Amino acid sequence: MRIWQGIFKKRSRRLGWLALAVLSASGLADPVSAGENLVDIAKSIDLLWMLLGGFLVFWMQAGFAMVEAGFTRAKNAVNIIAKNLMDFSVGCPFYFAIGYGIMFGASKAGLFGGSHFLLSGVTDMWDLGFFFFQAMFAATAATIVSGAMAERTNFKAYLFYTVFISALIYPVVGHWIWGGGWLAEKGFLDFAGSTVVHSVGGWAALVGAAFLGPRLGKYTPDGRSKAIPGHNIPLAALGVFILWFGWFGFNGGSTVAATNWNISIVLVTTTLAAAAGTCGALFFSWVRFGKPDVSMALNGSLAGLVSITAPCYDVSAVSSLIIGLLGGILVVAAVEFIDKVLHIDDPVGASSVHLVCGIWGTLALGLFAEPQYGNGVAGLLFGGGLSQLLVQLEGIIAVAVWTIITSSLVFLAAKYLIGLRVSREVELKGLDVPEHGQEAYAGFEIFSNE
Amino acid sequence: MRIWQGIFKKRSRRLGWLALAVLSASGLADPVSAGENLVDIAKSIDLLWMLLGGFLVFWMQAGFAMVEAGFTRAKNAVNIIAKNLMDFSVGCPFYFAIGYGIMFGASKAGLFGGSHFLLSGVTDMWDLGFFFFQAMFAATAATIVSGAMAERTNFKAYLFYTVFISALIYPVVGHWIWGGGWLAEKGFLDFAGSTVVHSVGGWAALVGAAFLGPRLGKYTPDGRSKAIPGHNIPLAALGVFILWFGWFGFNGGSTVAATNWNISIVLVTTTLAAAAGTCGALFFSWVRFGKPDVSMALNGSLAGLVSITAPCYDVSAVSSLIIGLLGGILVVAAVEFIDKVLHIDDPVGASSVHLVCGIWGTLALGLFAEPQYGNGVAGLLFGGGLSQLLVQLEGIIAVAVWTIITSSLVFLAAKYLIGLRVSREVELKGLDVPEHGQEAYAGFEIFSNE
Amino acid sequence: MRIWQGIFKKRSRRLGWLALAVLSASGLADPVSAGENLVDIAKSIDLLWMLLGGFLVFWMQAGFAMVEAGFTRAKNAVNIIAKNLMDFSVGCPFYFAIGYGIMFGASKAGLFGGSHFLLSGVTDMWDLGFFFFQAMFAATAATIVSGAMAERTNFKAYLFYTVFISALIYPVVGHWIWGGGWLAEKGFLDFAGSTVVHSVGGWAALVGAAFLGPRLGKYTPDGRSKAIPGHNIPLAALGVFILWFGWFGFNGGSTVAATNWNISIVLVTTTLAAAAGTCGALFFSWVRFGKPDVSMALNGSLAGLVSITAPCYDVSAVSSLIIGLLGGILVVAAVEFIDKVLHIDDPVGASSVHLVCGIWGTLALGLFAEPQYGNGVAGLLFGGGLSQLLVQLEGIIAVAVWTIITSSLVFLAAKYLIGLRVSREVELKGLDVPEHGQEAYAGFEIFSNE
Repeated sequence: MRIWQGIFKKRSRRLGWLALAVLSASGLADPVSAGENLVDIAKSIDLLWMLLGGFLVFWMQAGFAMVEAGFTRAKNAVNIIAKNLMDFSVGCPFYFAIGYGIMFGASKAGLFGGSHFLLSGVTDMWDLGFFFFQAMFAATAATIVSGAMAERTNFKAYLFYTVFISALIYPVVGHWIWGGGWLAEKGFLDFAGSTVVHSVGGWAALVGAAFLGPRLGKYTPDGRSKAIPGHNIPLAALGVFILWFGWFGFNGGSTVAATNWNISIVLVTTTLAAAAGTCGALFFSWVRFGKPDVSMALNGSLAGLVSITAPCYDVSAVSSLIIGLLGGILVVAAVEFIDKVLHIDDPVGASSVHLVCGIWGTLALGLFAEPQYGNGVAGLLFGGGLSQLLVQLEGIIAVAVWTIITSSLVFLAAKYLIGLRVSREVELKGLDVPEHGQEAYAGFEIFSNE
Repeated sequence: MRIWQGIFKKRSRRLGWLALAVLSASGLADPVSAGENLVDIAKSIDLLWMLLGGFLVFWMQAGFAMVEAGFTRAKNAVNIIAKNLMDFSVGCPFYFAIGYGIMFGASKAGLFGGSHFLLSGVTDMWDLGFFFFQAMFAATAATIVSGAMAERTNFKAYLFYTVFISALIYPVVGHWIWGGGWLAEKGFLDFAGSTVVHSVGGWAALVGAAFLGPRLGKYTPDGRSKAIPGHNIPLAALGVFILWFGWFGFNGGSTVAATNWNISIVLVTTTLAAAAGTCGALFFSWVRFGKPDVSMALNGSLAGLVSITAPCYDVSAVSSLIIGLLGGILVVAAVEFIDKVLHIDDPVGASSVHLVCGIWGTLALGLFAEPQYGNGVAGLLFGGGLSQLLVQLEGIIAVAVWTIITSSLVFLAAKYLIGLRVSREVELKGLDVPEHGQEAYAGFEIFSNE
Repeated sequence: MRIWQGIFKKRSRRLGWLALAVLSASGLADPVSAGENLVDIAKSIDLLWMLLGGFLVFWMQAGFAMVEAGFTRAKNAVNIIAKNLMDFSVGCPFYFAIGYGIMFGASKAGLFGGSHFLLSGVTDMWDLGFFFFQAMFAATAATIVSGAMAERTNFKAYLFYTVFISALIYPVVGHWIWGGGWLAEKGFLDFAGSTVVHSVGGWAALVGAAFLGPRLGKYTPDGRSKAIPGHNIPLAALGVFILWFGWFGFNGGSTVAATNWNISIVLVTTTLAAAAGTCGALFFSWVRFGKPDVSMALNGSLAGLVSITAPCYDVSAVSSLIIGLLGGILVVAAVEFIDKVLHIDDPVGASSVHLVCGIWGTLALGLFAEPQYGNGVAGLLFGGGLSQLLVQLEGIIAVAVWTIITSSLVFLAAKYLIGLRVSREVELKGLDVPEHGQEAYAGFEIFSNE
């Protein structure tokens, strides 16, 4: 029996009265509504929280699209939108069909799951809500790559890659860590996905950018890097604000329960780390380059957020400030290192933000965790010794090996089956008109299209 | 008695301590807080969910504004903003004063409601929350029209129309279907408003665009259609992401209860249909026009969402993929048909998205519904025979007749009382400066203003 | 004991199984999860609501950034973004370290709090959630100033100011009114912060703009004001929609409880006041200037929202329409008065919106409050006599005196220690390139840069 029948009946505007009568008689709706007991009411709260978290993580898709569009050139903005829209729209059905089963299906030796494909056998409404929440995380991992491969990737090749990260690469890692797989067994901890989501996306981004090679004109013949400024900083900033907002659902929602009051500490550490990351990047870039660099500060916000994603459930507010601050400094250094030393052209700094800070955040848990928080684990700095840190390191390496190998195979296959990169002419002209038949800003005079 | 008095007192920072004492003494706040029982706690959860749904549906207003601005020309962007801002701001008070009473007041023969004007007699806090939620839906129906009438409509005439759709046209349909009216009695089902909201808005959009006639230069003298590209695709894409995000509240919130765990299946079907709709439109346009069209893909997302709005509560995840995919293909075909065959100039494809897919989604419930879901109804493909499909068809026709007639009368009245269209000079120059005294992008060189 | 252990265990994907065993054995997680009783379940709902409110108030940061960027010139957009990003990122750690303790710490004679610095002693998860919520409010007060000081302020000086408003100026007022201080004792009521947040920000904005002096070219030598149009009205409109959406969390969340069903009336009054404010500003500007001014309408939305922020918990729906409408008219008059009479150059009208309507809203409570609503107080128009109105007035004056004096001291210190204003050359060129080394819209032809 639904406990609040009176109001339910009064308010069931969605049901015709006839239908309602049928339904009441048959009792069909009962198994999918809260019963008149505390446990079911608590479940309702937790379901609401988890679904709300899913909404917010979906919203991060808009953030990625705006950040990547803003930080690249106007002549490629339509293509960026296309990639961001389609990695969700292609990836999500594949995660539904295959990925979720690999991630959360019955485990085969702790390596991957092997049931629940197409949600078969998933009829419980809680489980369906859990799938909704998880699908949004899968989409986040997929979309990270888009920015690193911006302004030169063949659209078909990008769609090809999307299928594999959504259906296979990400779900296997997810099974290891969140699906009860071998890393979970070992005690590896990654609360909301510094490794599971961000490092996986970040490794694939780095590999993809390396396979593609730099954009035309990015490096001088003698190997010096040239800045290629983004075309719309307010749009990029909006994207960062969207991501930050969405991250409250990403980290906060990862309790999958609002009756777990640790959500409060999760949100406090998330906020402080993001703020500190922003400060770290702004002030470090100010010292380093002589000016307060807003693009760096925006990446610093994301750096702080990625850094706190693993440890947000297990560290104090003060620790979160330190973790975020170091994340913000690290991202500035990483952007320079990847650009100027590795000579890998990552137009929006996706690998610096998601990979480097993903690794940092995963280690930070092993350093700063305190036993009075959610997982009850102590890191190196709080009397826990090296054990947790070593497990974290093991997970980082395992995920690196897996993701580098599999994403390399996917990009290699894309290269030979489809072609990874657009032609020189298309790249110079911008991808929007030749590939999509459309300008991003019709009517505006745009002079710098090189 | 409020059950959680201790914390309430401690945290009642919004109350002066004096006021709190007064209040405790008088017991005034009691009737509007949850009592110490399961039913009241469940009500609190449901109220929270419904209000959150309302927030998200409000947010769709921003989505409509950005989509419409992005898909039209820079010289009319201020006017688009003005229309989107004002249809909410004018429509909402009229819905409060008149529309809500017509929609949910005591029924007169199943045709319209006749009480609760100005919320008179509505003192229960649940009912007030329900009004909040419903007001957002009314505003959605109203704002759909704006895009179809873009770039040539007299602003006063648009305000005039807004009053009638908010106070009368939409609420009457709402009464028939959600207010316990004659279509509800017959068993017509439209969970979140493929018909109630989207078809009503879509019919009015089509009628409005037809009355207005095409934009100058849209058709050549020999009747061929010319594309008029939108000025800001990233902005339009942001709008679509906003709408998609908001739709979680639109469909999910329509249970008006989080203790109704069917919210999970609603969100799964909504997401998959939207993803499939995006794919459908992108790939169909790719085949049809030779290039992956991003504007079409963005409309495909909306097509998937509109299509699943009626059946989201009653179909499986796999069915939702099919419904969305067909919606995405349909919207591409409909855009071409309305443009090239009907020669009705709908600048943003609002009628294709909201009307055509609204009809499709309403029928889809009659095809794909399965009895184990929310309403316990079986569609044609799941052993239910034709009965539900025929009721759905009857509702579609009734709403079409009502909306076409009433919106025609309103636009006719606007034409003769106010004038429906701006002058040729204003249209050529763009509406922003002549009508509103303001450019959208002051300082930018914009060359194409024809 | 967590009541919903079965599902918790099944779903604890975030915990390694080993960790979970440890945790279950030690019982560490128990004190931070809901117990199996009604009070704890109710607390979970209320915590969820408060945190959600915090998410939405954070999101307003994006709204402020977009409004301010859109309403100013393209050459200063990067700087606007920098200020909006950094006032949160610098202010939030300072509010954590100092401000929160001053605002909600143990009271010293009702004047300021003196404990809880760095959240010391704050271990209860509810209290941590409350800090999260409050930190977002503090950030709102800080960011209001940014727009009024746009296009000419030294970035370092702005950071300097940010520290003081977050750590001291705002928290002291907050203590007086929300922290159980002397104004709360007197019965001063400000539900969600027309005075606490908006007037404090608004006074600081007005003082800051006055100290800075007008932008170059704003006034002719004979003292006439020249309009300097904003560069991106769709962006500004997006910002207003963001703020409106976020305001549902600002006002609605301020119950800090969803078991307090007054949230329904709060949201109804908030919505209607915002709609009416928009109408008030649009129609008043239409009559006054001959055209429906969209910038004014957008400020009218904010005016309605600020006006209802204090009384949203205590007035009827009809009263909220009147309060909002007058707020909308007031903001148009205030913009003209501050610009043309006071000759203070506030580029985005922040002082008109936040200060003038903040005062109006605070008084409106003393006029329109009805005893059947949340605080049980009657205003002048509903039989309550002058008493509440006089207390409101006393609070307004006290906050004005405090904020004018302290913000003047801060801006004076900034002036002599750092320099408040950029050089003439930098201002003419725009702050973006000289101060931040970056254009907002690289590649776009922007002709009007004066």
